[in-house]
Amino acid sequence: MNTNRIEKVTQNMRACGLRQIIVSSTANVYYLTGVWCEPFERMLALLVKDSGEMTLFANRMFALQGLTDVPMIEYEDTDDCVAVLAPHVLPGKVGIDKTWPSHFTIRLMQQRPDVVPALGSQPLDDARLTKDAEELELMRISSRKNVEVCDRIARALHEGVTEKEIQALYIQIAQELGSPGPSFTPLICFGPNGAEPHHDSDGTKLVPGSTVIMDVGLLWRHYCSDMTRTVHFGAVTDEEKRVHEIVTAANRAGIAACRPGVKMKDIDRAARKVIEDAGYGPYFTHRTGHGIGLDEHEFPDCSSVSETVTRPGMIFSIEPGIYLPGKFGVRVEDLVAITEDGCEVLTW
Amino acid sequence: MNTNRIEKVTQNMRACGLRQIIVSSTANVYYLTGVWCEPFERMLALLVKDSGEMTLFANRMFALQGLTDVPMIEYEDTDDCVAVLAPHVLPGKVGIDKTWPSHFTIRLMQQRPDVVPALGSQPLDDARLTKDAEELELMRISSRKNVEVCDRIARALHEGVTEKEIQALYIQIAQELGSPGPSFTPLICFGPNGAEPHHDSDGTKLVPGSTVIMDVGLLWRHYCSDMTRTVHFGAVTDEEKRVHEIVTAANRAGIAACRPGVKMKDIDRAARKVIEDAGYGPYFTHRTGHGIGLDEHEFPDCSSVSETVTRPGMIFSIEPGIYLPGKFGVRVEDLVAITEDGCEVLTW
Repeated sequence: MNTNRIEKVTQNMRACGLRQIIVSSTANVYYLTGVWCEPFERMLALLVKDSGEMTLFANRMFALQGLTDVPMIEYEDTDDCVAVLAPHVLPGKVGIDKTWPSHFTIRLMQQRPDVVPALGSQPLDDARLTKDAEELELMRISSRKNVEVCDRIARALHEGVTEKEIQALYIQIAQELGSPGPSFTPLICFGPNGAEPHHDSDGTKLVPGSTVIMDVGLLWRHYCSDMTRTVHFGAVTDEEKRVHEIVTAANRAGIAACRPGVKMKDIDRAARKVIEDAGYGPYFTHRTGHGIGLDEHEFPDCSSVSETVTRPGMIFSIEPGIYLPGKFGVRVEDLVAITEDGCEVLTW
Repeated sequence: MNTNRIEKVTQNMRACGLRQIIVSSTANVYYLTGVWCEPFERMLALLVKDSGEMTLFANRMFALQGLTDVPMIEYEDTDDCVAVLAPHVLPGKVGIDKTWPSHFTIRLMQQRPDVVPALGSQPLDDARLTKDAEELELMRISSRKNVEVCDRIARALHEGVTEKEIQALYIQIAQELGSPGPSFTPLICFGPNGAEPHHDSDGTKLVPGSTVIMDVGLLWRHYCSDMTRTVHFGAVTDEEKRVHEIVTAANRAGIAACRPGVKMKDIDRAARKVIEDAGYGPYFTHRTGHGIGLDEHEFPDCSSVSETVTRPGMIFSIEPGIYLPGKFGVRVEDLVAITEDGCEVLTW
């Protein structure tokens, strides 16, 4: 276990008035215990007291014994797992990790009416918000590899290739470079598919004159990368060229606004203003970016309502886009790490 | 929307005393609305009243307008999504879908102290438990394709190939056969890796004299297949041969017990007894099977404590295994559909 991290988390717990929290997400449990466990429908719960005392509740099938020095209580598939955890929870307020499946929370409330569930992810969100030197280095490697794979799939584009084939090629090359795999399903969109907000890469074949969006990321020792490049295959229209220039300028304006002490909403504004001023405001339909680290999307958003103030060590995406339904889409995404006096772009 | 399904669900709601439920999982929402939406960290919620009245709450980014005739209320990324939903919930008990992230439930309780969350998945679990004719046919196709892909990867095994390469080959062939992809990460385990309960396929190379576990499934119009085959590459020891025979006999005993009106725990017993009688009981470390359909794992378990009684239309796996740490593992998994007088094996 990492005492610096536990210290950060318990300090955050005291700051938000939580004496105990139930940590459950794979990434949060890993952050505090060093154990990576994907429990699927089974219960994984790390009970953390503000004293720093921690107990990990895990299914025996996870086979976590010996992998961490955090005290562990195991249960079997045939046990009521919540009944194993419940007696260890103190009466009163307990912070619950945001993604813990509701049935665990409801069963805990039923078994322990003296316990009051509260939002409980903030101590971890805030601790994970700023990356330490080791994390920053892993994020750099993850992005460096991602840039290389993305370059290689861009060079592999040819007439008749399908989105699915380029997607599979991304995964293959990422694994050749030593990554266990992508950090999310690689999103490859040809032509009008790039304008669909939730297009899944499919059997669409590449034809000359297509704008191509490649939104890709990989895992490196559990740390996620994420970037988007848009390229034009064959002839490019004046409109495609102009939209690409506007989105690139918006991305650069967002990055230029990245330094310590800035509100995330002001970074969003800097990027969004470029697109609005060019008359494409209604076609930029999402937030400018999101935090990233052990999870592909993590706290905080870089959106028009995010009051979070940047601090050195924060890593997030800057990914403005313009989507013209039925025609094409353009998105340009980079990851930035806030430094003492500005930012480092991990994807350049 | 499918009126038969809504009728089944509202009947189940009345049977368990729920006047309203919040349905949130991708598969449950699809089952009732015909819309497939993976919301990631955003909120997707279908409020169902026991009158059959339904309202879908969705982020505008999901772009679901026009895809369903269920009334829809959209929110923006900058809205408090729970505040959009909360006024529509009736006072009193509300059933909450089991996997709804806890922060939505807790925020609903904070905004509506007059609302009491209860376990709310049973009406959907029970409706989805028995597949209708259309679902059964999709499950058959999904399994038939899976058998074909599994046969082809088994024939592709050769000295020096890695687990990851066979995994990638599975995905490639599944897509060639028209599937959008696997229903879970294909699990390919060589030699001693097959004895690890949670081995992730990696760069391990195949050497002669290895027992190989292939646990694979694919998607067919959202319906999941799942099967496991164990093969011996090169020379096979007496112990490997014997263990494989025992596990196959356990699988067949489980399948032989499958007919309407049987408790799931008795099917588990039938399979487990074969392994226990052969002296390998402690090495069969998991339940015998699980329900499957729109989700890879769905209600009910086929475990030693499952009191669920089989009914025609139920589909689940029979997957006994023996795992000898440091040596090898064997698992044999088939999917069965309960019929009027016995069962149909989908994976033969």
